[in-house]
Amino acid sequence: MAARSWQGTNLPRVGGFNRAVVLDAIRARGQVSRVELAERTGLTAQTMSNIVRALIDDGLVVEDGQAPSTGGKRRVLLRVVPDAYSAIGLHLDPERITGVLLDLAGGVRLRCQRRVPAGASPTAVIGALSRAVRQLARRSPAAVLGVGLAVPGPLDAQQRQVLAPPNLDGWSDVALADALQERVGLPVVMDNDATAAAIGERWAGAAGSFVYAHLGSGVGVGVVLGDQVYRGISNNAGEIGHIGTGSGGRSCRCGRRGCLEAYSSMRAVVEEWRAARPGAADACESVSAQYELLCRRAADGDGTAVRVLRQAAARLGYALATVVSTLDVDHVVLGGPGLRHVEELVRAKVESVLRANAWAAHVRPIHVRPALVGEDAGAVGAASLVLDHAYSPRLATLLGG
Amino acid sequence: MAARSWQGTNLPRVGGFNRAVVLDAIRARGQVSRVELAERTGLTAQTMSNIVRALIDDGLVVEDGQAPSTGGKRRVLLRVVPDAYSAIGLHLDPERITGVLLDLAGGVRLRCQRRVPAGASPTAVIGALSRAVRQLARRSPAAVLGVGLAVPGPLDAQQRQVLAPPNLDGWSDVALADALQERVGLPVVMDNDATAAAIGERWAGAAGSFVYAHLGSGVGVGVVLGDQVYRGISNNAGEIGHIGTGSGGRSCRCGRRGCLEAYSSMRAVVEEWRAARPGAADACESVSAQYELLCRRAADGDGTAVRVLRQAAARLGYALATVVSTLDVDHVVLGGPGLRHVEELVRAKVESVLRANAWAAHVRPIHVRPALVGEDAGAVGAASLVLDHAYSPRLATLLGG
Repeated sequence: MAARSWQGTNLPRVGGFNRAVVLDAIRARGQVSRVELAERTGLTAQTMSNIVRALIDDGLVVEDGQAPSTGGKRRVLLRVVPDAYSAIGLHLDPERITGVLLDLAGGVRLRCQRRVPAGASPTAVIGALSRAVRQLARRSPAAVLGVGLAVPGPLDAQQRQVLAPPNLDGWSDVALADALQERVGLPVVMDNDATAAAIGERWAGAAGSFVYAHLGSGVGVGVVLGDQVYRGISNNAGEIGHIGTGSGGRSCRCGRRGCLEAYSSMRAVVEEWRAARPGAADACESVSAQYELLCRRAADGDGTAVRVLRQAAARLGYALATVVSTLDVDHVVLGGPGLRHVEELVRAKVESVLRANAWAAHVRPIHVRPALVGEDAGAVGAASLVLDHAYSPRLATLLGG
Repeated sequence: MAARSWQGTNLPRVGGFNRAVVLDAIRARGQVSRVELAERTGLTAQTMSNIVRALIDDGLVVEDGQAPSTGGKRRVLLRVVPDAYSAIGLHLDPERITGVLLDLAGGVRLRCQRRVPAGASPTAVIGALSRAVRQLARRSPAAVLGVGLAVPGPLDAQQRQVLAPPNLDGWSDVALADALQERVGLPVVMDNDATAAAIGERWAGAAGSFVYAHLGSGVGVGVVLGDQVYRGISNNAGEIGHIGTGSGGRSCRCGRRGCLEAYSSMRAVVEEWRAARPGAADACESVSAQYELLCRRAADGDGTAVRVLRQAAARLGYALATVVSTLDVDHVVLGGPGLRHVEELVRAKVESVLRANAWAAHVRPIHVRPALVGEDAGAVGAASLVLDHAYSPRLATLLGG
């Protein structure tokens, strides 16, 4: 607990902050007038006018059409110029790399996917990541601001390293971001996949406070509090894969018992299914291929498959009850490739268990909803990390932290 | 998840914020020069000079002595005027009311305590609270800014109501803050006791990010993230009394099983002790009296008492591992009357279980330490709520939220 002082703030910082506030408000609303912007942001008409002028001069914003008349002079509408800049997002899930090219308005312009061979070395993965970057950058209609990289946690954000993620066998302290940056010649920002997906959800329009549970190979949570992404002291907030989930102590790969990922990771779910129905899946297939088959079976109404998935969802709901009680939020978003074909089945079970176990559910409803961004959430979130880094209002900037 | 806009900020707000930043920095450091203040806060010498002048004119700050010479001109030191204002803090624990009078520098000037009869009605408790306020106000050397009231959660801060706290039988939706305000004619601010205690800890010098586990009749956590108290969307962040704590499903008074308070509340600990050692305590005594006896026995080395307390501490450590993983903080503070006589015994057990169960402990040390403010933490925190409300830098002010 190092003693830290509050930093005062000053005019240049306030100016940069206000500029970011305005750009973010325009992007979030699609089309909006200066008057509405001033109302929404609390800035004076004069300040707003100056900021908008600068954004137009820089080619980030353009006047486009007029609002319907409300009696007086019709208001000119502003929108972000999508092709002013673009950003590349990559999501490294143990078995595949998903890449997207995002425009400045948050639209997905290009998408690519590459498989990662089981047991691939860091060098091989860095090669595959940089090929994905080059493929997307070549076809980008605008200058690429940078690359966002979403990786399974835990990670060391300051050292820009991946720290022995339980789902990437043999990886330990790999300086992934720097290695990729060197290979592709673009700035690379890195975050854990759940946080990246939560940022993508915020870019897609989610506001206020929510937790985003990302179901990939593992399970993690991204935390957004009062419109701000909360990262924790080491960028590992929401690393809930190894918290306890009630009675029963199934062994986890981390060496402890009863962890969430011992029940709800793709690997754990597949193992449970194969134990319940020997021969149901081909053990030579990859974990994600077997998991997808299970989800298809569940979607078709197979009783065992449904039961196995509900059991995993129940553990997740139990863990999320603790997260929701700790953070005092009332919205949970579910996203990631683990939901494909079974979104409603998982959502309903998570919600019912969460409501039964969070005391706050007695006082107010707790909502669990599917993500606005689909299974590319990690990659879209990673790309929006770059845009977020460049433009969105961050308290850190204002407060000089 | 209501859509909420970022608010821009403007000069008057920045001015008020900077003034609060400076006052807080002076208070936290005891004595400090303008030059050091400017360095610490990042404000210019001119801005600092203006702010300090205004604080001196208002009688909140005074020049007092000089720093040791470092070669050049000796620097004049500033300090807060303790008797410029005072604030009253009350902590309502089910069996007693603790009251303190805090001066502007954060010093405890007066203290009082009143027992609450078992089964007391809200009206009787409000009477006892207002008598405590009058007793302290009468003897205050300075104008009283207001009353802070710390109560067991959960609560409805907007309605200023206590919401059926599990440890206050027969209480439900009691509008405590308004009723007290009407009786005493001073503004009353209310918060849950764990959050109040965390604020008191921040006032006493704790900085950065930490969770404060408050052991009173129940168990709750106050959350401080990056020097800011985090309250959640309904002021109930850190309500962890009813989160699950691993295998075993002891019945809880809330109707569920395995809750933290089913193991770690004073009542649960006392019941466990009486079950293990029939006749160890007089069941006609109050729960807190029996608990205190247990703690004395444990401090004297009684094996059963030690075992019972360690078991409760282990459940708390398990719950805190989840909290720490979710929030990604590495400091835990333990405070409250439940630690009397047994602080180190409980701390050591909580720390060892926490380290065994939080993944982050593999990456960096997690520290568990006793609170800077002793068992009056709730009342001191409640009083500092008033001062915090009046003076400390709050982002909400700056951002117009």
